[in-house]
Parts: sequence; structure tokens; C-alpha cells
Amino acid sequence: MANDNQFVKEIADIKKDFPKWYTDVVIKTQLCDYGPVKGTMVIRPYGYAIWEIIQKEMDKRFAKKGVKNAYFPMLIPESFLKKEAEHVEGFAPEVAVVTYAGGEELAEKLIIRPTSETIIGSMYSKWMQSYRDLPILINQWCNVVRWEKTTRPFLRTSEFLWQEGHTVHATAEEAEDYTQQMLQVYKEFAEEVLAIPVITGKKTEKEKFAGAVATYGMEAMMLDGKSLQAGTSHYLGQNFAKSFDMKFLDKDSSLKYGYSTSWGTSTRMIGALIMAHGDERGLKLPPVVAPVQVIVIPVAMHKEGVLEKAKELKNKLSEMGIRAELDASDNSPGRKFNEWEMK
Amino acid sequence: MANDNQFVKEIADIKKDFPKWYTDVVIKTQLCDYGPVKGTMVIRPYGYAIWEIIQKEMDKRFAKKGVKNAYFPMLIPESFLKKEAEHVEGFAPEVAVVTYAGGEELAEKLIIRPTSETIIGSMYSKWMQSYRDLPILINQWCNVVRWEKTTRPFLRTSEFLWQEGHTVHATAEEAEDYTQQMLQVYKEFAEEVLAIPVITGKKTEKEKFAGAVATYGMEAMMLDGKSLQAGTSHYLGQNFAKSFDMKFLDKDSSLKYGYSTSWGTSTRMIGALIMAHGDERGLKLPPVVAPVQVIVIPVAMHKEGVLEKAKELKNKLSEMGIRAELDASDNSPGRKFNEWEMK
Repeated sequence: MANDNQFVKEIADIKKDFPKWYTDVVIKTQLCDYGPVKGTMVIRPYGYAIWEIIQKEMDKRFAKKGVKNAYFPMLIPESFLKKEAEHVEGFAPEVAVVTYAGGEELAEKLIIRPTSETIIGSMYSKWMQSYRDLPILINQWCNVVRWEKTTRPFLRTSEFLWQEGHTVHATAEEAEDYTQQMLQVYKEFAEEVLAIPVITGKKTEKEKFAGAVATYGMEAMMLDGKSLQAGTSHYLGQNFAKSFDMKFLDKDSSLKYGYSTSWGTSTRMIGALIMAHGDERGLKLPPVVAPVQVIVIPVAMHKEGVLEKAKELKNKLSEMGIRAELDASDNSPGRKFNEWEMK
Repeated sequence: MANDNQFVKEIADIKKDFPKWYTDVVIKTQLCDYGPVKGTMVIRPYGYAIWEIIQKEMDKRFAKKGVKNAYFPMLIPESFLKKEAEHVEGFAPEVAVVTYAGGEELAEKLIIRPTSETIIGSMYSKWMQSYRDLPILINQWCNVVRWEKTTRPFLRTSEFLWQEGHTVHATAEEAEDYTQQMLQVYKEFAEEVLAIPVITGKKTEKEKFAGAVATYGMEAMMLDGKSLQAGTSHYLGQNFAKSFDMKFLDKDSSLKYGYSTSWGTSTRMIGALIMAHGDERGLKLPPVVAPVQVIVIPVAMHKEGVLEKAKELKNKLSEMGIRAELDASDNSPGRKFNEWEMK
């Protein structure tokens, strides 16, 4: 039975089948598509534009906290993962392993990063000599791979994009404080940019990050009443510092291990956006993250002057700083209304 | 013998040993460091800031050509690479292969992308139905892996960052024209942003991209009189369209294969920057790409008011839109001068 309110008919009823509604929305609004390898996802231009806005807005907030971006290699020697006992136990079942490269079997297997604490720890141990080098406050935007059995676009995929911040501090207090500060950055970001209500709190021992002393999570509230983990901030204590020999000469001339933190959010935030704001017509994006804030659809485009006027309007909006687009394709206006309503 | 002109003494003499000078500069100015896996590179914050500026400047120019960014999976089924005969021959010796994932041996081996024509082609074949869907103009910023025997930071590394644009057009003329347009974008970018003189031209049959009909390259001129390939634009004809079934229904109601192009530039451009502009004192960056355009170094910082004045100056410069930084570390002014002179 057709629902009168359901202007867009290609997507499942949000009230009757929320999971199907979600999948319909992400695929049919061309946010993403399924990749050829099971569990992988293609982020299409409309979805990627949201990610670019998220990156830009988040980078602004990271910069205020003194964070700089960098890039660390994706391939991690298998031995690195094994150096921290809880860490290897937590990630070993999910990793993808490179055994051949350049036509030869590798002497040591390489892991595609499921997260980068170990490889970054090995570099930090080289870079930190004295208390003068601390704190180290670095973030990277990259891809990671975690091989999971059940996958869903944006929410859980074998490869996903994320940011991972990794810091080292001279004292436990400073590192613990920074862990909290970044959790706060995430909370503000979720509320101000994504316009999603969130609850933050400490994870149980069982749920915490593999190798962390304490993990704090941000749970985002979805339309179906469920919560979705949308970001985590970990206080790592000296666990990775000891495994990777991250030592520094302190002001009192003694050698000490540093205290580290790590914190991450991912393309899952796009999934959260959809599930927190959608409606029976499809996607509904908060203005700050909407790639297209105004769409101009000319009616009777074939008539003289119509397309020119539409272009003029679009340009005027663009000049005002509004992300406007003109749909001048030769599809019918009805089809255009339908498509853009869904998006 | 010390050279009087050589203010910075930690780096090799540019006139006597250019390769050593290059390596000294990239490592000692903290643009990058060697990763734990042979042939890999860590891009440190100072180097990554250059990459971020390059990305921003390039994205502006891509947008003017109608290009949108997207993201495609990194793992490619081995069978994809084999579909285009020249392509597999060209890349097979360099690929890194994932054979295990999630604790199990994979039924089909997965290749870490050395370039993405094949996986992107498989998606385009799904997305293009009618002439209305063309042209497809998509770029992605990502990491790629090519396992090579001899590596050098930024110039040739097992993993590197790049952008790869992939387009499909209805006619050969349009695709050929687009190939040339993108080569022109690269040339203008190199000259206007990187301030590097370049020569563009067609590659020989032997040098062309594996699977292309024609490859056009941009050679950048370095201080030692050698040229460095800094970007390429490929006209792929229908080669990949036929291998990946990229067909569309044309206006005349007949099914046709599309004509595709691809074009890329990489973190190698940072290497080009260094080798085109450096001098005996180290790095010399054109203002457009310099992460730090003005460095404020307070002298006699311990005296009352000095640090405040320095901060004031730094803030004034920042407000003017100049990328300024203040070095308030407790290193000596002499060490600071030396460090920043090198950078």
C-alpha cells in the first residue's frame, strides 16, 4: 500500500524497515556503492563531498589543540603488532596480511594497518629525545583495513577512511587530560557540525581498545532509538611507550617513558548522519555538511532565457557563499525533483 | 674544508654531492623519515603541510575542469589486473599481494592498488548507462603501492600518496582533448604553484603507461640539470572500456564503448620542489607552498616583554593571512636560526 506521505517511492518505509531504508538511502542517493571485494565500499562523489567537509571542519578544531597532520606507512611488520600483548590479541583476527611483494615472498609478513599505534610508536621513539620534544601531537587521515564478517556501507566495512590522532606527553596527568580534551572536541563536532546529540562516557574493561588503559566513547543517538559509536579517545598510559621504547630525558636528567593517547573517528560518521537525520523522503543533511545546499531546477528549460536565468540564480547563490548547483541535464523536471528530494 | 657560504653545516655540499645533499635536506629539515619497512617513508608534519597545500591548490584547478573527488577500495581482485594484457605485464612485477585476511586464506588473492584503472573501470561500467551519464570526471587522493628495488624519499618509495583522475567520454576526440587539458593543468600548476619550469611531451611506445594508447609526461627541470617526471596524463582509448565492459546507449540508440583517460601526480612533486629550489643552506620553498612563510625567533626571550612582543608580531602576521609561526622553544636563538635557515 502506497503511503501518501512517501513522495519518494524507491526507498523502503523508514517506519517499517529502518535497516532497509538505510541501505536504500545510501545506495540510491549515490553516497556509496558496493566494491567488487566483499565488504568493501566505493565512496561516490556525493558521499565523498560530505567526508571532505567533515575533514575540513575537524582539521580546524584539531589545529586549535596544536595538532598537525602527517602520514605514516600503511604496511606494518607483523612483529610490531605482537609487541603489545593485548593489542595483538585484539586485532589479530581482523588483519589483512601481505605475504608477497615485488614478485617475491616476504621474509617478514606485513600487516595492513588496522590502526597505527605500533608503527607510529616506533617512529616517536626515534623522534623524542628530550622533554623539549614533548608533547608530540600528530594526526593522520588515512585508510585502514579490518576484516569483519558482517559489513554495512559506512557503518562497518573491510576498508574504511578515518583520522587517527596519536600524542605523547611527559606526564600521566597531561595525557589523561588530553584524552578528555579530544573526546570533548568530538562531542562538540558531532553537535555543532553534524547536529547529532551524543552521549560520552568510559567503556567497560571488555569494550576498551586493545592495549589501552582506558577508552572513552561517543555514542550518537539514531532515529530508531539505538545508539551508534561514532568516536573514541584512548588513554594508553605507558603501555605502548614500554613496548616501543618511547623514552625521553626529563628536566631532572632522568630517562622516562612517555604517556600516550590515541583517538579516532571514521567514515562511519556519514552513516550516523544519515540515521540521525533522514526521513521518509530519504536523506536530510544539516546545512553545515550538505555538499549541495541549494539545487536549482529549471522548469521548461527549452524556452528561451530559462536556462540563462537559472544559471544567473545559481551564480548569485554561489557568490553568496552558498553551495548551489544547477541541474541542467535533459532529464524531466519531475525526475529531478524526485532525485534531489531524496538527496 | 669548510665553505664560507655554507651557513648550514649539517648538510652535504650541493655542488659536490647533489644526491647526498638531497637526502640530508629531506631528513634534516624533518620533511620525512624512513619507515620501518624497507622502501617506505613517513611524511612528517612539515612535509605533509606542503602536501596539503598542493592538494588544496590542485583541487581548485580540478574543480574548474568539472572533476569531483571520490574514493575507491584499495584492494583489487587479482583477476582484474589480468583483464588488460599490457596492464598486467606492466604492473605484475611491482605489486604487493594480500593472501590472508580475517584469519583465513583468501579464495582469490588481492592486490594493493598500484593504480586504479581496473577497479574504477569495473564501477564505471555499472554507473554508465546512457550518454546522459557521460562524461564521468572523477579524481581520488589515495595511497598506492609499487614494490621497487631502489627507493629514495619522495622520489621513489614502495608506498606513496598521489591523486589519480579517471574520466570516461562518449567520443575519442573528447577523451583525447581532456587528456591534453589535464596535462595543461599540471603544467600550469607546476609553473604557478611550485614555480618549477617544465617541459611536456608525448612518451615513446616503450615508456608509455601499461594499457594506454598514448602517455603524455611533464618533465620538471632540476638544479643538477637533470629532469624529473612530475606528472603524466594518459589517453586510454577503448582499451579499459573493452576489458571492463564500459558501454553506454548513445543518442542514436546504439550501444557503444566509452573512451577513457587517467592522469596522476604524486608526493614526488615534493621531491621536485626540493631539487628545483634548494641551495647550500638547505630547503628553499616558493611562498605559495611554504607551510611557514615567516618565522618569528625572539632574541633574549627571558627578558620581560620580549615573548609578548614576539607573539603580538606573529598574530599580526597571521591576521594578514601570512603563515607565520613563533619558535618559543627553549633552544638557543643560534640553533633556531640554523634550523629555520635550513627549512
